[in-house]
Amino acid sequence: MKTLKIPEATIIRLSVYSRYLTQLDKKGVSSISSGEIAEGVGGSPAQVRKDLAYFGEFGTRGVGYNVKDLNQHIVRILGLNRNWKVIIVGAGNLGSALTQYKGFKERGFEITGIFDNDLNKVGLAVNGIPISPINKLKEIVQDNKVDIGIIAVPAPYAQDVADAMAESGIKAILNFAPVVISVPPDLELRNVDLAVNLEILTFNLELHKDKN
Amino acid sequence: MKTLKIPEATIIRLSVYSRYLTQLDKKGVSSISSGEIAEGVGGSPAQVRKDLAYFGEFGTRGVGYNVKDLNQHIVRILGLNRNWKVIIVGAGNLGSALTQYKGFKERGFEITGIFDNDLNKVGLAVNGIPISPINKLKEIVQDNKVDIGIIAVPAPYAQDVADAMAESGIKAILNFAPVVISVPPDLELRNVDLAVNLEILTFNLELHKDKN
Repeated sequence: MKTLKIPEATIIRLSVYSRYLTQLDKKGVSSISSGEIAEGVGGSPAQVRKDLAYFGEFGTRGVGYNVKDLNQHIVRILGLNRNWKVIIVGAGNLGSALTQYKGFKERGFEITGIFDNDLNKVGLAVNGIPISPINKLKEIVQDNKVDIGIIAVPAPYAQDVADAMAESGIKAILNFAPVVISVPPDLELRNVDLAVNLEILTFNLELHKDKN
Repeated sequence: MKTLKIPEATIIRLSVYSRYLTQLDKKGVSSISSGEIAEGVGGSPAQVRKDLAYFGEFGTRGVGYNVKDLNQHIVRILGLNRNWKVIIVGAGNLGSALTQYKGFKERGFEITGIFDNDLNKVGLAVNGIPISPINKLKEIVQDNKVDIGIIAVPAPYAQDVADAMAESGIKAILNFAPVVISVPPDLELRNVDLAVNLEILTFNLELHKDKN
């Protein structure tokens, strides 16, 4: 199947296109060219067309794309035509920030639980969601049919949390702890190291320094 | 120059390899094969070799790589053989979490200032760093020779903050606000939308659902 070969970079860009199209749709813009999409997100028109071509024919040559239709297509491709239930383990600064991050809800991600082992935090609430102890993880995941777990604990605890998530029946893990963790092969894992983003900037800064 | 064509995905992976090599080096591991690197970070040995080949010959066929040397090479490629000064605008949950994020300091990123327009926050400190009003941005950036600014404000304020950063002489911006912002062409910009990470997971979950 063609979709099995799609590069992750394409998925990331689709997500960016969709966010941009959502903004345009809210503003009442009804049609757009690949060039305008490219300009809006800082890419090239050829890249936009190539990314979209993985999934079939969307636009009309010379006319462009219908903003709403294209966005609905992308949303479906990304699996966002439904809501996803998410829990967060770690009620520190990062976990609390993620619990309140508006970008998740806008895209259909519903935070249904937050967990911490610190007994001083258990029973408190973040954004209206009570903090539960980690030994309640499996029960809450199964009762609420949670799909995705976010790890927001310090690195030394991340593997234990991943193990508990795997055992709970969660299908996918997003790991913010800056450490390599391992999970069973049937579980989707994505590591987010926030420093990587700064490193891409410094790589580019060094590159341009060489040019000058 | 060859380095100008390096895909961003390669830079991201180099950053991941470097983090893994740092862990191994701390454990006293002195040499490693591309296969072992691939296994450690969840990639393929061919990908590891291809990524490293952009920057010359590092390993010895049949022997592998010296962990410390390879890591030093990558660190230099990423521009991390020096410290970088970083400020954060937005002292809400996300900004506070980022100020305290250990993964930045480990990689040589020093948070030298945090800013907010909320007068209730100005004068308080996060992680020992006093919160300053945004009208002090330019002064603090110039006095401290700050390289990078992180935007951690709500979406409606992001463009104003980007403008202030551009005006202050900052060289690169990392934007966490889920909105498209524009900056002058000589300024490096990277947008981090945390929801994108969840969308890659849901894309993969949907893909595998189709297979079953």
